Amino acid sequence: MNYKMIFYTLGQLFKIEAFFLLFPFIVSLCYKENTWYAFLIPIISLLTIGFLLSFDKPKNKVIYAKEGFVITGISWLFMSLFGTLPFIISQEIPNFANAFFETVSGFTTTGASILKNVEELSKGMLFWRSLTHWIGGMGVLVFMMAILSTTDARSLNVMKAESTGPQVAKLVSKVRTTARILYSIYIVLTIIEIVLLLCGGMPFFDSLVHSFGTAGTGGYGIYKDSIGHYQQAGYTHALYFEIVITVFMFLFGVNFNIFFLILVGNIKDIFKNRELIGYFSIVVGSIIIVSLNLYFSGNALYHNIGQAVRDSSFQVVSTITTTGFSTADYTNWPALSQCIIIFLMFVGASAGSTGGGIKVSRVILLIKSFFSEIKNMLHPKSVTVITLDGKPVEEQVIKGVNVFFIIYMIILATITFVISIDGFDLLTNFTASLSCLSNVGPGFGLVGPNGNFSIYSSFSKMILSLTMLAGRLELFPILLLFYPKTWKNY
Amino acid sequence: MNYKMIFYTLGQLFKIEAFFLLFPFIVSLCYKENTWYAFLIPIISLLTIGFLLSFDKPKNKVIYAKEGFVITGISWLFMSLFGTLPFIISQEIPNFANAFFETVSGFTTTGASILKNVEELSKGMLFWRSLTHWIGGMGVLVFMMAILSTTDARSLNVMKAESTGPQVAKLVSKVRTTARILYSIYIVLTIIEIVLLLCGGMPFFDSLVHSFGTAGTGGYGIYKDSIGHYQQAGYTHALYFEIVITVFMFLFGVNFNIFFLILVGNIKDIFKNRELIGYFSIVVGSIIIVSLNLYFSGNALYHNIGQAVRDSSFQVVSTITTTGFSTADYTNWPALSQCIIIFLMFVGASAGSTGGGIKVSRVILLIKSFFSEIKNMLHPKSVTVITLDGKPVEEQVIKGVNVFFIIYMIILATITFVISIDGFDLLTNFTASLSCLSNVGPGFGLVGPNGNFSIYSSFSKMILSLTMLAGRLELFPILLLFYPKTWKNY
Repeated sequence: MNYKMIFYTLGQLFKIEAFFLLFPFIVSLCYKENTWYAFLIPIISLLTIGFLLSFDKPKNKVIYAKEGFVITGISWLFMSLFGTLPFIISQEIPNFANAFFETVSGFTTTGASILKNVEELSKGMLFWRSLTHWIGGMGVLVFMMAILSTTDARSLNVMKAESTGPQVAKLVSKVRTTARILYSIYIVLTIIEIVLLLCGGMPFFDSLVHSFGTAGTGGYGIYKDSIGHYQQAGYTHALYFEIVITVFMFLFGVNFNIFFLILVGNIKDIFKNRELIGYFSIVVGSIIIVSLNLYFSGNALYHNIGQAVRDSSFQVVSTITTTGFSTADYTNWPALSQCIIIFLMFVGASAGSTGGGIKVSRVILLIKSFFSEIKNMLHPKSVTVITLDGKPVEEQVIKGVNVFFIIYMIILATITFVISIDGFDLLTNFTASLSCLSNVGPGFGLVGPNGNFSIYSSFSKMILSLTMLAGRLELFPILLLFYPKTWKNY
Repeated sequence: MNYKMIFYTLGQLFKIEAFFLLFPFIVSLCYKENTWYAFLIPIISLLTIGFLLSFDKPKNKVIYAKEGFVITGISWLFMSLFGTLPFIISQEIPNFANAFFETVSGFTTTGASILKNVEELSKGMLFWRSLTHWIGGMGVLVFMMAILSTTDARSLNVMKAESTGPQVAKLVSKVRTTARILYSIYIVLTIIEIVLLLCGGMPFFDSLVHSFGTAGTGGYGIYKDSIGHYQQAGYTHALYFEIVITVFMFLFGVNFNIFFLILVGNIKDIFKNRELIGYFSIVVGSIIIVSLNLYFSGNALYHNIGQAVRDSSFQVVSTITTTGFSTADYTNWPALSQCIIIFLMFVGASAGSTGGGIKVSRVILLIKSFFSEIKNMLHPKSVTVITLDGKPVEEQVIKGVNVFFIIYMIILATITFVISIDGFDLLTNFTASLSCLSNVGPGFGLVGPNGNFSIYSSFSKMILSLTMLAGRLELFPILLLFYPKTWKNY
């Protein structure tokens, strides 16, 4: 294990976190809030530790797959630990388990909260909470690669560990350039959303935090009823806000390679992309079924098909992209719609997007494995090759996807079991675990859109925090930290 | 497709079903019930059709893997269709969907019922219901092989399709002898249980039907509160009955190869058998956790640790063996215990037993896949071989197990979704689907031990019936029936 490289990377990471903390610090000063020091102290601490750790450049910069995972896992753990400081120092979230849960939920773009009333938080804290979504969305280590000069051999294994999907490929030959392209697209899309929300008359602060929440597919809101607030409060352009946010949630759930293909003018390949087609089809199909189900459900609110389509579109896109914003309480929806929402929590967004879940491309490969096995039953001696986008997929990748799904289910079952100790009902425990593992945010039962995670014990909150990290980093960076053989040199 | 062989096998099967129908017919006569004709008519019909179909022996008796699956799937479908006749003719279950559900639930050893009050049924019908468990437990086609002279080439693929587990092996070189050994063990164990129950003073009729239900790991009872009846009704030996039934449920959940090893005196290999160790450990571990959880739950009934151990032992063994008898309503248990019950519904019994579910050996291989993948992440270039009982498991078998699990989950999700149309709550729909797929019987919510499946629409009942068949035959024989390419000759 190349420990020197781990410390060095942590040092760089702390400096970047200090940089990001400057923004809520400035917000705090602008709003003349007396919690500015809660940002200043962590900034100074992070800079000091950061410079100490990264002072001595290691000679051996080689990072193998194993180190890539470990560095990523440890970085996210420490980034979250330091991210809790503003909440704890300001005493706005005084309890450590709560602050850690809230910060991890931010960075992992889950958006599950322990706050009973989010509106009590200061502007600075609200800003920091939403900014963590933006930082975690595309990946802080990818960001580090984009701004620091690093060797490619070092970076690729870290990028693979932090990015999502069954196959992580570079857009261009250099990792650093790839990282820059990804972040440029990310920043530009975020700015466009902010501008569009401002155009509709959304307050500046709201536009910023909601755009961060959308971009990272996080879902932290600043009102008790999330995005539903604007309709409740009678904003003229509430529908416009919802449409803009829905469209951008959808876009941030798309594989960023697609945007790169658009940039280089390769439009033809986009329409052949199986994952994009699958993602789009699931969204449209789900919206149609949920809308009809709501319309015929007998609920007075949905006697108007327009309202049914409006709420179902927002909620379907919010769930599949694992954002977790809400405009309606889907826990009151009929069973069929609830079933689709849970299904979408499993599926998640596209690989290489900022969304969580199993990912559409993996789901496609799982279904292809299914049919391949059926064909294999008919003709046991024939060899079936699974293809995606017209190219054969390596046997190793298929195996990886299958085992990924199995581990996903084993973790889901284990976490549901462990948090059952707190004694809440099955549906609450199951959906809380699923929502954390898939980085969605709200679940069903006591953790539905109108509930929160404060009900759980500190122990369960720590377990769920690790679950969110495991979900965001696609299991292995966190699993390996707890696997004894990872720490043996041989 | 060798259609002639399919018809011929169906013919033989119908004759066997007629033979089995003689028993409830006799019971009906003994109890002087006026529903004896409800058995006589199907017996005559089955014999007639059976002789017509099997009159002409096909020259080409070769059965490939594909035909093995198709014959098995079709046989079980038709056996169930004819099995409904007594219920419908006697008008004790007049509705076809209900009668089909009840019969399929019997043959597949699920034990889920649409009856609101089972005690209203005549003795003959109760006997037939429980006998279907016994017929379906070891497999009716295996029974056919045991009594008819058949060529081995023909039988092995049918036996593979009807038996459970990731690897089906013959005990001895001949398929027919293997089938005879399996059925002899099955019959002897059933008789021992009947005798033991009689010794404790259980009425003769009760001993028979409960032994059938135990042997097939089915779970149809004859009282509203299942086996709990004896304690409720104040039988002196209620505890003794529960112990006998618990022990035998456990035994019928063991791989029958183990009993064969005992018979041939190879005791040494038994204690090395990973699946047996795993099965035993899960049972003991679950009983300990559930007992403690019940004891500390604050429920007045379980202030007595003895009662907690008694109920938890019975329910744990009943669930993992997918029998579904009950002595307590576990839907009132605390969340942790409920979580274990659901977990056991997934796991199921051992491969090569009469129980359903994913099977312990598959679960062991899934967990081994998990760790193998983690090792693979640490050392991407090394090759890890998964072993079971000291022998390496073929890559093809591992892949099969992984995909089996994936298909299991896809089917579970699909069925839950489809029956959600009826509008019941998520927990009810999910556990109803799981319970049917794993051939357990009761679920949670409205289909708990005190509920029943009559709530569902006819459409959902048909879907759930197919799910039970898919679960009992380990998916492929039923899936292939609906796969268009199965029916193409090329």
